[in-house]
Amino acid sequence: MSSTSSTPQWVRDLKPSGPQGSELLEQERSKSSINVDTLSAFLHTRDGLARKRRVLKILENEKVFNKEQNYFAGRIDRFETALARAKKLRQLVIRHGWDNDDRMVANELISEPGPYGLHESMFLITLRDQGSEEQHEKFLKQAEKYKFIGCYAQTELGHGSNVRGLETTATWNPEDQTFIIHSPTLTASKWWIGSLGRTANHAVVMAQLIVNGKSLGPHPFVVQVRDMETHQPLKNIHVGDIGPKFGYNTMDNGFLLFNHVKVPHISMLARHSRVDPKTNKYVKPSSPSLVFGTLTWVRSTIVMQAGGVLARGVTIATRYCAVRRQFQDRDAPSDAGGENQVLNYTTVQIRLLPLLATTFALHFTGKAMMALYGASQKKMSHDVGKVSGKERGAGPEETHSGSDLLADLHATSCGLKSLASYTAVEGLEVCRRACGGHGYSSFSGIGSWYADYLPTATWEGDNYMLTQQVARYLLKSARSVLKGNDPTNDTTAILANFLNRQDTGAAFDILGNDADIVAAFAWRSAFLTFEALKHRDEQKKAWNDLLVDFYRLSRAHSQYMVVKNFYETLQSPTNELDPATQGIMHKLFRLYALHTLESEASEFYTSSAVTVRQIQLARTNAVMKLLEEIRPHAVKLVDGWDFPDWQLDSSLGRYDGKVYEDMFYRASELNPLNKITVDPYPDSATLFKKDESGSMKAKL
Amino acid sequence: MSSTSSTPQWVRDLKPSGPQGSELLEQERSKSSINVDTLSAFLHTRDGLARKRRVLKILENEKVFNKEQNYFAGRIDRFETALARAKKLRQLVIRHGWDNDDRMVANELISEPGPYGLHESMFLITLRDQGSEEQHEKFLKQAEKYKFIGCYAQTELGHGSNVRGLETTATWNPEDQTFIIHSPTLTASKWWIGSLGRTANHAVVMAQLIVNGKSLGPHPFVVQVRDMETHQPLKNIHVGDIGPKFGYNTMDNGFLLFNHVKVPHISMLARHSRVDPKTNKYVKPSSPSLVFGTLTWVRSTIVMQAGGVLARGVTIATRYCAVRRQFQDRDAPSDAGGENQVLNYTTVQIRLLPLLATTFALHFTGKAMMALYGASQKKMSHDVGKVSGKERGAGPEETHSGSDLLADLHATSCGLKSLASYTAVEGLEVCRRACGGHGYSSFSGIGSWYADYLPTATWEGDNYMLTQQVARYLLKSARSVLKGNDPTNDTTAILANFLNRQDTGAAFDILGNDADIVAAFAWRSAFLTFEALKHRDEQKKAWNDLLVDFYRLSRAHSQYMVVKNFYETLQSPTNELDPATQGIMHKLFRLYALHTLESEASEFYTSSAVTVRQIQLARTNAVMKLLEEIRPHAVKLVDGWDFPDWQLDSSLGRYDGKVYEDMFYRASELNPLNKITVDPYPDSATLFKKDESGSMKAKL
Repeated sequence: MSSTSSTPQWVRDLKPSGPQGSELLEQERSKSSINVDTLSAFLHTRDGLARKRRVLKILENEKVFNKEQNYFAGRIDRFETALARAKKLRQLVIRHGWDNDDRMVANELISEPGPYGLHESMFLITLRDQGSEEQHEKFLKQAEKYKFIGCYAQTELGHGSNVRGLETTATWNPEDQTFIIHSPTLTASKWWIGSLGRTANHAVVMAQLIVNGKSLGPHPFVVQVRDMETHQPLKNIHVGDIGPKFGYNTMDNGFLLFNHVKVPHISMLARHSRVDPKTNKYVKPSSPSLVFGTLTWVRSTIVMQAGGVLARGVTIATRYCAVRRQFQDRDAPSDAGGENQVLNYTTVQIRLLPLLATTFALHFTGKAMMALYGASQKKMSHDVGKVSGKERGAGPEETHSGSDLLADLHATSCGLKSLASYTAVEGLEVCRRACGGHGYSSFSGIGSWYADYLPTATWEGDNYMLTQQVARYLLKSARSVLKGNDPTNDTTAILANFLNRQDTGAAFDILGNDADIVAAFAWRSAFLTFEALKHRDEQKKAWNDLLVDFYRLSRAHSQYMVVKNFYETLQSPTNELDPATQGIMHKLFRLYALHTLESEASEFYTSSAVTVRQIQLARTNAVMKLLEEIRPHAVKLVDGWDFPDWQLDSSLGRYDGKVYEDMFYRASELNPLNKITVDPYPDSATLFKKDESGSMKAKL
Repeated sequence: MSSTSSTPQWVRDLKPSGPQGSELLEQERSKSSINVDTLSAFLHTRDGLARKRRVLKILENEKVFNKEQNYFAGRIDRFETALARAKKLRQLVIRHGWDNDDRMVANELISEPGPYGLHESMFLITLRDQGSEEQHEKFLKQAEKYKFIGCYAQTELGHGSNVRGLETTATWNPEDQTFIIHSPTLTASKWWIGSLGRTANHAVVMAQLIVNGKSLGPHPFVVQVRDMETHQPLKNIHVGDIGPKFGYNTMDNGFLLFNHVKVPHISMLARHSRVDPKTNKYVKPSSPSLVFGTLTWVRSTIVMQAGGVLARGVTIATRYCAVRRQFQDRDAPSDAGGENQVLNYTTVQIRLLPLLATTFALHFTGKAMMALYGASQKKMSHDVGKVSGKERGAGPEETHSGSDLLADLHATSCGLKSLASYTAVEGLEVCRRACGGHGYSSFSGIGSWYADYLPTATWEGDNYMLTQQVARYLLKSARSVLKGNDPTNDTTAILANFLNRQDTGAAFDILGNDADIVAAFAWRSAFLTFEALKHRDEQKKAWNDLLVDFYRLSRAHSQYMVVKNFYETLQSPTNELDPATQGIMHKLFRLYALHTLESEASEFYTSSAVTVRQIQLARTNAVMKLLEEIRPHAVKLVDGWDFPDWQLDSSLGRYDGKVYEDMFYRASELNPLNKITVDPYPDSATLFKKDESGSMKAKL
């Protein structure tokens, strides 16, 4: 705290009442046998940890990355700062020769969406994957040098998930060999396009290709939207920022409209399909599956990240609940003295500790999916030659027959993306509330993080829409199993197992045997699959009437996969955790699985996977006991996630427990609102007595 | 749209693709037989509706209340505008001779917390209820004239719900007959105090009264904190705004520290207890229950309001989901043409329609509680004379023996406040997400409303803490019933009924008989009560180990009360709805009850209130059928809530369905970010090409 402080000396001499937060966290850490170092390395690898330290050191020393005013600044200021940071980061990448992983780590540490975000992801990827060599030369090279700064313009004001409903048109004009890009209606306006609002000078525009009056579906076009010098919109293009959002306000999501804008033939990205300028004919895509493969990969990363996203909230809430004390235990002797750490209350434990278990469950599941993706890609490249002409151009659900591996991963990724992102979203809000009143302060660091993460539940497939893909795949698998086909992957295996054992019934020892817990989740998923199949195929129920069942089915199947992946990770012989940490991890597995089982109890009853008595025991005995056993390790477990204070930017989640000092410092020293002195009386002619902010004006 | 528009003419000529939102909403309204006018009057009374129209007309014509820049402005701007609005509102109150109800309606229409908020509620109420006549003369009169502008300073940086843990002291100094107000630690700082940050010049400070070295618990003191002329903090007082929050940023929540500040004897509010300056002795409060009565009343209003709070989100989402179209029904013939209204999908219906039912359920429950409160107040004033000396000074749970009515209402209000505010919070977020991507835009109008409402889940009793009060009351009632005492209110009646029928078991016809639905909820609540009692009294489980059970118990009992109140409201002969609307209301009751029952299925199984088969049927048959039957009336049902567009301030929730036009207008015409032109290249020396905003500066 500087000597120019506006806080009087007598206030600066005050300390929080004891015991101090730092003492409490020290106690917590001394009571647990967890090896934080091993745990961190297990989660992030030694290389990953070293990379983070190296990048952090550089960022901390750059003034533009100072976060002190982040929570105070308004939208325009925040956007400007974000742009300045994006530029600086690009300069650092060049100066230090950072690779892509270094840049990603820097972005994680900075922890805000930036105006180059879509340029550096979708724009470059699309040019690379969908551009021809000639287009790589013309567009990609410029983009890699940040001369072309781009975005990916797909969503429209009136059209979200349904890409086929896009209204923007690109009409092939044989006369001058151009495409005419046009927005026929207001709802055709591109909308939500990241990096477009103020930053991009180019866009990949998804538009309905029209050749010889025939509509051929959405295709990508590279279109310049702003002048390279003045950065003003080009003629007949209306482009701008779509306005403030619940979060993500450091990003300039934009709108874009075209009034019969001509672009040359080379603008249509031609790797997969193209218009032949000589014949004026459309040449069909060679392999649509590869595109869906990319979406599958993106969804797998979302699952992987969801664990870490949630872990930030759990870290903040767990540390603060160990520092915060309130009331005395009702059963404690009256001379016990002092208030109880909030983390000791079971109502707090039941909210935080299952979420702590969830962070690991999602992380391990994401890791397993990435591995599966690698395997499926190898198999796919092998399969591509075999795709028949008939299958070309079909949607994702129909192209799977060539590869059971990709089919399984596609369905898996849809369901898990939906489950993981919702779990992180809901969980962050639970963490914020577990911090009591102070969770509502921006200084908690959870609110803004939650608000910025929220759109993940909608993009890359709306979380509700996606569940239909899972259900469709499970129904198809069930039909195959019913026909007597041999299981070809885990999904068909659990369905076949259910059919075989159906008549003898299930008897899973969920409280005594961990493999049985996994089996109970598989049983419930298989039960719901065959129930849904009966509704659809036998009872001929309308698709729309089954959507709610499908949502539940997808959720059940995804929970099975998370439980299974968590279990298998801990069984794996490559697991390098020390025995003490391994033991707690095992308890976390059981907590995640039994708490989930208990929350979804009615589906487990209905499927006869477990009895009412088992669920009662799971709740009143097993879960409550696990909370008690995990409680002493909570702080060190979140330490294992290894978030630097600089990244968390949270008063409540400080590693050193100096929660109240930090809250007070930010309010008393950093808060610009305290520079204005108002005239509080309703009948006065002015709003202010004194105005040191320099930008105020009377509003009356 | 003005002629100085920055939007080019060719864009301004565009329309959304058809059918237009206005046509779709017209269709919706023509298809339903609901009488919107009758429904609105039933909810709000004719007088209430007329009052709203009258006040709205005046507000709309005052420039300061124009909402166009609300979503764009940063915190300082928003606070300044809010202060200007608060002043103007006070002027309007005087000019038009508005009564308190008029002012409340104006605040609802303006829909933002204002800097006079705590002055006009807690400060005035506390002075009135807890001040002596002399204090009314000295403080209240000045406060009513807005010379004293005040706040209510209870919560501290380190102390939330536990009032007894407050650290601020007020030490009686017999020598000069003053109190010395002091903050001994940093955690003693008052925190979260509404209207204190920049606005108030006075505060009611809750401080531990110390007389003759003896601590006598928290008492209220009126303390001047800022100079009446310069509005600067007085000497040895450190006061300011606590900084930005997740929402509520138009309010200046403040902090406050005292360094041995002397205040005269009259500062301690003396209606209920006081220090006799002649004897230097403390005089005990005459009737603590009256204070708890006020809290009970506040909680009842929260329940009542929760219905309306949620209804705003449901109104916006329902209208938008009727305008938004996406995909075709999978079973529809391929020539059906056009996309399907999102509201037709069952995954959307299952999220929105039970919430629509909930808005009415909470509203009716709140109304019933207000009535019960009136009755209990009458009974209490009658009882006051009978309170024995021994009971004085005891906590709320021990003072009830004098009045079964207040005991029941106190517990009821705790549990229902918790359930209702969480339901509204969770429900608003469901509504926001049901709007898809556009729900994330500030223009949806849901995000800011949600963020501003959130603290209701924490204040007036944390939603988790409160459930202990309910459980304690239910256990006490159960013990009384077990002893064979006759039922004295509804709670003891349902407990006694459960005991009587325990051996014959329950057989509730939840799908055929509405009274049986209510009975099933009562049965489950009673079952959980006796289970909890067994754990506590027989098995001697620790209080802390039962908190999770208590939370569930409170939730179960509160849901029973909501179901019961909804049912009784529709049975009531004073119900003036027309038969068609009455019929739909009845379906909404069943939807609320059966959907809740199905969501909490496992507790209903465990208590044997219903069978597994009944729950399955409730879900797959009853609930799905109710969704289909209520769907055609959804738009008119939300119309019945009668929110003016001016109040909602939502593009998506517009009454006329012009959703896309409004989104576009706000982005293209009102968005100040579009006035800056950035220099997008990472190696350029500046951030801006052109800057029309006047307040930007390069940050590199």
